[in-house]
Order: sequence, then C-alpha cells, then structure tokens
Amino acid sequence: MNKNIVLASTSTLFGEAYLQYLTPVIKELFEGIDEIIFVPFARPGGISHDDYTAKAAGAFAELGIKVTGLHTFSDPAAAIHQAKGFFTGGGNTFLLVKQLHEQGLMQVLKNAVENGKPYMGASAGSNIGGINMQTTNDMPIVYPPSFDTMGLVPFNLNPHYIDPIPGVAHMGETRETRIKEFHTQQTIPVVGLREGSWIRVKGRHITMEGSQPAKIFTAGNAAYELEPGSPLNL
Amino acid sequence: MNKNIVLASTSTLFGEAYLQYLTPVIKELFEGIDEIIFVPFARPGGISHDDYTAKAAGAFAELGIKVTGLHTFSDPAAAIHQAKGFFTGGGNTFLLVKQLHEQGLMQVLKNAVENGKPYMGASAGSNIGGINMQTTNDMPIVYPPSFDTMGLVPFNLNPHYIDPIPGVAHMGETRETRIKEFHTQQTIPVVGLREGSWIRVKGRHITMEGSQPAKIFTAGNAAYELEPGSPLNL
Repeated sequence: MNKNIVLASTSTLFGEAYLQYLTPVIKELFEGIDEIIFVPFARPGGISHDDYTAKAAGAFAELGIKVTGLHTFSDPAAAIHQAKGFFTGGGNTFLLVKQLHEQGLMQVLKNAVENGKPYMGASAGSNIGGINMQTTNDMPIVYPPSFDTMGLVPFNLNPHYIDPIPGVAHMGETRETRIKEFHTQQTIPVVGLREGSWIRVKGRHITMEGSQPAKIFTAGNAAYELEPGSPLNL
Repeated sequence: MNKNIVLASTSTLFGEAYLQYLTPVIKELFEGIDEIIFVPFARPGGISHDDYTAKAAGAFAELGIKVTGLHTFSDPAAAIHQAKGFFTGGGNTFLLVKQLHEQGLMQVLKNAVENGKPYMGASAGSNIGGINMQTTNDMPIVYPPSFDTMGLVPFNLNPHYIDPIPGVAHMGETRETRIKEFHTQQTIPVVGLREGSWIRVKGRHITMEGSQPAKIFTAGNAAYELEPGSPLNL
C-alpha cells in the first residue's frame, strides 16, 4: 500500500489565516496535483457546503490547486473514483460521519486513499482517518447510522487535544479523563493531537509531525508524550 | 401532573464534598422519603455500578435516605414501579442512555417521574431529563440505540456550561459555538446550566435555581442570561 496522508489537529492556528501553517505540508502532500475534491460535510458553525468549499478553494488557489466540493457531483462515488486527491475540513464530526455513511461514501473514500490518492484531514476530517469517531470532542447534534470511520491509521485521534488549564475550578471532565473513559469501553489507542501538530502517513510509515508533542493513550497504561519526528507505532 | 424534579448541573462543586451544596435541595425534594433508587449507569471514570452506588449511598445516608442501585434488581422495571424516588448520577451520558434504552427503562422511568415520584439528576442524570441527549459534552464512547431521552422538561440541557476562558488561544469550539451548531440542525431550546445551578420542576412550574444565572439558547435568536429564581418558560 502506498498511502499518502496528513491528519492535522486543526486547520487554523490562533491569529493565522486558514491552513496557513500547513502550506508546506500541503505542497508536499499534493505535489504534482492540480485539483482535489473537498469534503465539506462537517459544516463548522453550520456554514453551507458551498460557502465552506469556497473557503477551502481560496486557500488552495494560492497553491495552484483547484478545489471542487464533493456535494456538487451527481454521482459522488464516481467523483471519488476519478479524483486526484482529497481534503476533508473540520467542523462537526457527527454531521460529517452521518453524511458519508448515508451516501455510502465512507468505504469508497477509504478505498481511494488506501490505493494511494493523497488525503488531508483537519480536525473532524482527521477524526475520520481513525478507526472510529468515538474520541471526537464534538456535540452529537445528529445521529449517524454508525460511529465507524475509515481506519486509515490503526488508532483513534483526539484533535485539538488540550491539557488541563491550571487554576480553572470547573468540574467538567478534562480531555484526559474523557479519553480514559473511552478506554473503559474500547482498547483502541488514542493520539491526543495538539494544535499545530499532524500525523504523516507514507506507505507503512506513520510519524508525528509539527510544533508540539502528541499525548499517547493506550488502554491500561499511563499516557505518555511523543515528540514531533517520532514514529507512531502503537 | 405533579412533577417534582431537580436537574443539577453538577454533583460536586470545586473543593466541596459530593452533593454537599445540594443538601438543602435534596432534603426538600425527597421530604418524607426514606429510600430511593440510584441509577449508576453513567459510570464516571469507568467506576463500577457497585462502587458508584456506594458513593451515592454514603452521601444520602447522612440525610437518612437509603439508596439502592438500579443494577441490583433482577426486574429493574418493576423496581422503578415500586420505588419512592430516584437519583441519577453524572458520568458519561452515552453510557447512561445506552443502558436505559437497551434495558427498556427510559420510558418506564419517565412515566414514574411524570406520575409524581421525585427525581434528581446531576450532569448526565440531568441531560436525560431533556428532550434528547444531543447537547451533552460527553465523548461518544459507546453507541446508544437512540439519542432520545425522557423529556421531563420541554428543552435540552447543557450541564457544566462554561463561558470562553479569556486569553486562551485554543482553537477548539467554545461551548456556545457547539450549542449554536446544534441549532443549525434542531430547534429545541437549550439551557446552559452553570455549575452551582439547577432546574426545579414543581408540577407545571419550572424555575432556575442556584448560585449562577443560566445561559438560554433558542434557535435563531441571540443567547441571553436568566437569573436564579426566574421562571423557565421557553
């Protein structure tokens, strides 16, 4: 298998433009490719598929890559078969997964990516690269027919991973507590992916990349930090 | 209908003992009642049903109320029919809702409470008092057969409601953003219930109570604050 994948924690760093910090990553991932399909189904803030696609298209236009929204094709499965690459934007993972399952596209997209077409995800778009979406931070605003996702990597992701903020007396669960609760039910490892970091898959090799270490959670063990540049062998 | 219900944001305030701040509320809600059923299915941190029930029993023992875990009955539906009152503890709302639906108890519990048996919920236990669980903050660590809950009140709850923390550059969605995303899909009003606050239902009257105002979200309108003591007519 010749996988070529980037799964990023976030699309946007604080104070920066959309996808700005990922520009070198995008250039390398989509090298030689002049058009991709954008999957807009996560609809951050309820933005329309058209508006969300226009936002992505604007950022990719600066890199000479044309973007077409998956929602614009009358036969989206055929469009995925014919596509040269993919970007799935962030937003609400429940919305995204519901659409992909209901349109029968989850497996189609998985096959295309496993056959070597480059894929980039950000946030919700990275969650669906994991085995299931059950370590998302998102609110269950719709009911998907299944929580299973593409399993492009042999673990789950928790994008926007955040450490407890010192001095905050709020009694809601911390992110670490939530992921440990997940491990009372499932044994899938979880990569807590801090903002500014991403996972890079090239064939059989999976590495942590970016500006911050990841926090790695495996069932029954203490969590640990993994520095950028390290292989991700869970 | 003679409803008698407390839906609290949290079981525990920072630095306090379990249920401590709710002691006067519990005394009034369960006045004249010497035993209740505890619903332990939300299992915070993966705690066992037995251990969680022991924790609740310890707090209620000081008030002279005996607590029995719903999981200990061979016929839990019959136990609910015969019970004098209920407390559902916090934890993971997906776990709680899955158990209640799979055991066929959601409607049984709803009927018992609507017929006047006192009910207290905390956090996840309050979420199930709403129309559905789709404004929970919890991670979807299991897949419930439905997101529908008891609808004891004509709106949804968001327990542990928290305002954006000034100066934090994290790009994950704020709670307000998530609830607004919910309103791109559904029109059910949402009560953002801050810690230290609860909803009190007495018959047809629903009021906000506690130490902090609630934040009220209705589809298509600006959110607003509602002071303790105010009627909740959404």
